[in-house]
Amino acid sequence: MKAIKVAVVMGSDSDFPVIAKCLGILKEFNVEYEVFVISAHRTPKRAAQFALNAEEEGFGVIIAAAGKAAHLAGVIASYTILPVIGLPIRSSTLDGLDSLLSTVQMPKGVPVATVAVDGAENAGLLAVEMLAISDRSLKTALFEYRNKISKEVEEKDRKIKDEANNL
Amino acid sequence: MKAIKVAVVMGSDSDFPVIAKCLGILKEFNVEYEVFVISAHRTPKRAAQFALNAEEEGFGVIIAAAGKAAHLAGVIASYTILPVIGLPIRSSTLDGLDSLLSTVQMPKGVPVATVAVDGAENAGLLAVEMLAISDRSLKTALFEYRNKISKEVEEKDRKIKDEANNL
Amino acid sequence: MKAIKVAVVMGSDSDFPVIAKCLGILKEFNVEYEVFVISAHRTPKRAAQFALNAEEEGFGVIIAAAGKAAHLAGVIASYTILPVIGLPIRSSTLDGLDSLLSTVQMPKGVPVATVAVDGAENAGLLAVEMLAISDRSLKTALFEYRNKISKEVEEKDRKIKDEANNL
Amino acid sequence: MKAIKVAVVMGSDSDFPVIAKCLGILKEFNVEYEVFVISAHRTPKRAAQFALNAEEEGFGVIIAAAGKAAHLAGVIASYTILPVIGLPIRSSTLDGLDSLLSTVQMPKGVPVATVAVDGAENAGLLAVEMLAISDRSLKTALFEYRNKISKEVEEKDRKIKDEANNL
Amino acid sequence: MKAIKVAVVMGSDSDFPVIAKCLGILKEFNVEYEVFVISAHRTPKRAAQFALNAEEEGFGVIIAAAGKAAHLAGVIASYTILPVIGLPIRSSTLDGLDSLLSTVQMPKGVPVATVAVDGAENAGLLAVEMLAISDRSLKTALFEYRNKISKEVEEKDRKIKDEANNL
Amino acid sequence: MKAIKVAVVMGSDSDFPVIAKCLGILKEFNVEYEVFVISAHRTPKRAAQFALNAEEEGFGVIIAAAGKAAHLAGVIASYTILPVIGLPIRSSTLDGLDSLLSTVQMPKGVPVATVAVDGAENAGLLAVEMLAISDRSLKTALFEYRNKISKEVEEKDRKIKDEANNL
Amino acid sequence: MKAIKVAVVMGSDSDFPVIAKCLGILKEFNVEYEVFVISAHRTPKRAAQFALNAEEEGFGVIIAAAGKAAHLAGVIASYTILPVIGLPIRSSTLDGLDSLLSTVQMPKGVPVATVAVDGAENAGLLAVEMLAISDRSLKTALFEYRNKISKEVEEKDRKIKDEANNL
Amino acid sequence: MKAIKVAVVMGSDSDFPVIAKCLGILKEFNVEYEVFVISAHRTPKRAAQFALNAEEEGFGVIIAAAGKAAHLAGVIASYTILPVIGLPIRSSTLDGLDSLLSTVQMPKGVPVATVAVDGAENAGLLAVEMLAISDRSLKTALFEYRNKISKEVEEKDRKIKDEANNL
Repeated sequence: MKAIKVAVVMGSDSDFPVIAKCLGILKEFNVEYEVFVISAHRTPKRAAQFALNAEEEGFGVIIAAAGKAAHLAGVIASYTILPVIGLPIRSSTLDGLDSLLSTVQMPKGVPVATVAVDGAENAGLLAVEMLAISDRSLKTALFEYRNKISKEVEEKDRKIKDEANNL
Repeated sequence: MKAIKVAVVMGSDSDFPVIAKCLGILKEFNVEYEVFVISAHRTPKRAAQFALNAEEEGFGVIIAAAGKAAHLAGVIASYTILPVIGLPIRSSTLDGLDSLLSTVQMPKGVPVATVAVDGAENAGLLAVEMLAISDRSLKTALFEYRNKISKEVEEKDRKIKDEANNL
Repeated sequence: MKAIKVAVVMGSDSDFPVIAKCLGILKEFNVEYEVFVISAHRTPKRAAQFALNAEEEGFGVIIAAAGKAAHLAGVIASYTILPVIGLPIRSSTLDGLDSLLSTVQMPKGVPVATVAVDGAENAGLLAVEMLAISDRSLKTALFEYRNKISKEVEEKDRKIKDEANNL
Repeated sequence: MKAIKVAVVMGSDSDFPVIAKCLGILKEFNVEYEVFVISAHRTPKRAAQFALNAEEEGFGVIIAAAGKAAHLAGVIASYTILPVIGLPIRSSTLDGLDSLLSTVQMPKGVPVATVAVDGAENAGLLAVEMLAISDRSLKTALFEYRNKISKEVEEKDRKIKDEANNL
Repeated sequence: MKAIKVAVVMGSDSDFPVIAKCLGILKEFNVEYEVFVISAHRTPKRAAQFALNAEEEGFGVIIAAAGKAAHLAGVIASYTILPVIGLPIRSSTLDGLDSLLSTVQMPKGVPVATVAVDGAENAGLLAVEMLAISDRSLKTALFEYRNKISKEVEEKDRKIKDEANNL
Repeated sequence: MKAIKVAVVMGSDSDFPVIAKCLGILKEFNVEYEVFVISAHRTPKRAAQFALNAEEEGFGVIIAAAGKAAHLAGVIASYTILPVIGLPIRSSTLDGLDSLLSTVQMPKGVPVATVAVDGAENAGLLAVEMLAISDRSLKTALFEYRNKISKEVEEKDRKIKDEANNL
Repeated sequence: MKAIKVAVVMGSDSDFPVIAKCLGILKEFNVEYEVFVISAHRTPKRAAQFALNAEEEGFGVIIAAAGKAAHLAGVIASYTILPVIGLPIRSSTLDGLDSLLSTVQMPKGVPVATVAVDGAENAGLLAVEMLAISDRSLKTALFEYRNKISKEVEEKDRKIKDEANNL
Repeated sequence: MKAIKVAVVMGSDSDFPVIAKCLGILKEFNVEYEVFVISAHRTPKRAAQFALNAEEEGFGVIIAAAGKAAHLAGVIASYTILPVIGLPIRSSTLDGLDSLLSTVQMPKGVPVATVAVDGAENAGLLAVEMLAISDRSLKTALFEYRNKISKEVEEKDRKIKDEANNL
């Protein structure tokens, strides 16, 4: 049986440095993914076509990242019943409030699972959690990931205690 | 020659009481219009189809009204080169800031001409101003309208001066 | 095989009228659910215990609804690797901005899938979409739901066209 | 017949670097334009005079860009029935929210067609769309422009797919 | 010698209930005033004319009250060197933030002395304070007013102490 | 030894209905308190005098509640080294954001311990927690209070489970 | 007769670079001024003393500049009936919204004449306008100043027209 | 008798440069403290364990610093009846508004004593004030501190007066 893939769609190539952190997470969990640059406004037909075919193409979850009046996640969600994760990108003005509200405030009937502004790692982790609902080995990997980041905090605790002693 | 029509699209029938004030303006200027309930998220294909055909159907300007993560104006604008006027509707939370930002903060390449939150009359007037660019009689009608509202203010000035005297 | 359940947790019983709309969606899709009143701050141990046992109890997705400094979704997410859907509730002040930001702005490592302020139906639909990743019949039901709400919009389109003609 | 011109008015010469992107669009469409530095507050009479004469001078659309308490677009709109496009400029504080609200929240009777904060290209495109209502060749040029930016996104899609493969 | 008058200008007659509290203050100090309904956008020429003549007409201070994209104070200030007090009025959306920012964020060169949203009494008191700079009897009256409101607080202190005892 | 008292100061008697909930908490813990109506702006000398004498009068903690540009807590804190709890009150506009920021954003050197907008019970509880640092019996009472509210949540959990079953 | 002076008070010496622009304006108008560093919170008694003596010391207007929970203008205003101009300073966080709201949202009875965030020149100009109410030569100087800045805009108009031609 | 300690907890080691200023204050007052890096979301059990043991470990006050959806202070407060001081940290987006609201808007029953965004010194001073309620020598030290910072302002007053004279 073929593994379920994650589609990572960004509205602009300038979002890639943020997106890369999302891809890093998917790699760490050995989750297959494909990336797309699709603009909800400049390439609306490709956005629709992509979303309509996404399930058939083997995608189980879609991550959509966009800034400003961030319609990308909502537009994709309107054409698919796959869960769509919205990743609001902070652009030059209004500090990301515009992309956050445009992504999260979806009307009744078509949800978008929104993560924090520029929260690319969490978009990836949320996709993994969704796939893990029916994938025991991903569940195990998520527990290990939680253990790992928990230990990182403990190491930082020791490091900072040392720094504080040297104040 | 057939007159150019204005399309007035709303994302939800609950927006109609606000929209009615827009239609009142179009009527006052004898501008032909048609109304549509089209949801960018619940009926995305109809939104696309409507926008793709709008020019051929004789529309010259499109007014799109929506609340919350108000993608309607942007989605329509992505499928047409007609000017699209975005009318942000105040919904139950966040006092309209979500619909305002979702409508106005469009990315480079696809503009939406945004008016005030719930500013339905101005959406209608802006449509008339756009059509008037090449329609001398509409220009005259706009001057008369400005005269009328200017006189209304002057009448209110007299009325309030009286009220103030009776304080 | 036993069906995967959805846990619907609210921080306060005063949130129930909003939550009921979420339960309505789950019922419509024949998705089994259980409801809980758990306060992240007044019953932190129960919150932790609930989250630690959630997977073993047969839950596949958790919906957590809270207002003000809405920590509930984040606290639950910190104790489970199940996907957690955060539903920010508008409380008496600041129009829901506090609960939205407290829910969505989660730090790296522990995501919360946030929906709109008071967006209870969408919280339910998002849970269904997540379960549908590995459940063909839920996928079919989601397509039918989308068809239904699309037709509702079309009916409203006819109704409003009539109303507009009578203006 | 003489072509209809676009007036591009800015409240301060410091806005010019942003405005230049608007002029670039107008040039690309061979739309004639003239630029003005007019301050609504420091040169109110020139603002009024400019607006009163704008139509007679051959202008069909006015673009007005200003920051802070951005009254320029509104002041000009109050003296003309030409469509006025408001371009809010982000100044040193409050991240452009002040100029956005001062531009878009116009009262009933005098609309301003507002674009995104610092959205200079879109101000230009919106002007072109308005002129295109009665200009078939501009319509064709707009379709070509949409094609061009759509292809640019597709190229970026290929470029980012390569970058993603090299992660 | 004729006393210096205060002009109280409102952008809409619907602002009058708020304005009345300002007039009450001016009456209490026996400061002569005149009220005007002048819209910066619907009657721009009257706004300009009013401001240009204000000093000659015997006004020493101008109070300008307006809502939404509240340009009235700024427009008047641009035509006069009299001090202009801006009174932002809360209108139906955005809770007065739009009128506050539109009034207070004036660019360099033309100040507006802004008071709180709907702070009508303070607009009146500020006008009195300005006139009092060169009017000893108004100074005395201001001291007495301060004494009076201070005593009112002391009375409320006693009243609330009683109420608290009866809890 | 005389028990340490809590001073509860409000800027306006209109705040009393909110404040009453704070007094209820203090009563529940048998903490002695006195209430005051003192305006930072209308009775500045009384505010200073009160704060300068507070410690000597037997107060250990001061709760200061005010709305709008809520300076009361900061003004009192500037005259005393007792911990001052700031309780921002939501007034008619801006939904309490003004009082929250005016209370919490204190500059370096003079802190105010701020609680939620209209969070009167928590202001009382925080005062009790501070006094409990050196009062074992208050600590016990706080544990009992936490137990009580935890049990209330559990009861609500049962009640809501019933309601949900009857949907 | 001795000229009326302006007092320029800042809450922190770090505000001086902004304040200097205010002093430049006062110099340009030959208005006498004195500067003070007084913290509402760290030196409350000096703040009170300063305000109580201000009129007797020959001051006619007070400019008070402060950041964060900017109480300085309000505290001074509470001790004097001289007009107090509040100049909100943008500090490190929240982009000046905190200082703006803390300064402008004064409760009934004690107004503060607020100018734009960091609007130092306008604070100076507003002080001059207030003094000019009873000073004919300052009125003339203000007209000349307006002429000067109007001409500066016209020069910039020419400069930008040249730049635009060279695009 | 052993002195009461202050616990200083941060959600991330990247907050340490801000926290260091808090530790400097505690040192200046000879208040014993310990620092911890504990993440509410990545190490929830350690957060709970820490809070449950804090009183027994000799802590009298807890300072908790976190950014974004800053749950740390609230989570700790839910497990202890010690007073918890919340220090919102400004992270990369939304300018600290998210951490401020997540920290301060605590629901009824579990207060957090919130200081300004990045207000690390004040978090330390507030802890000292709380301990001083029952510690006469700390009270004296606080008076001396206030004297010191008051004198610093006076020195800056002299320095700025000099600078102003040299303008």
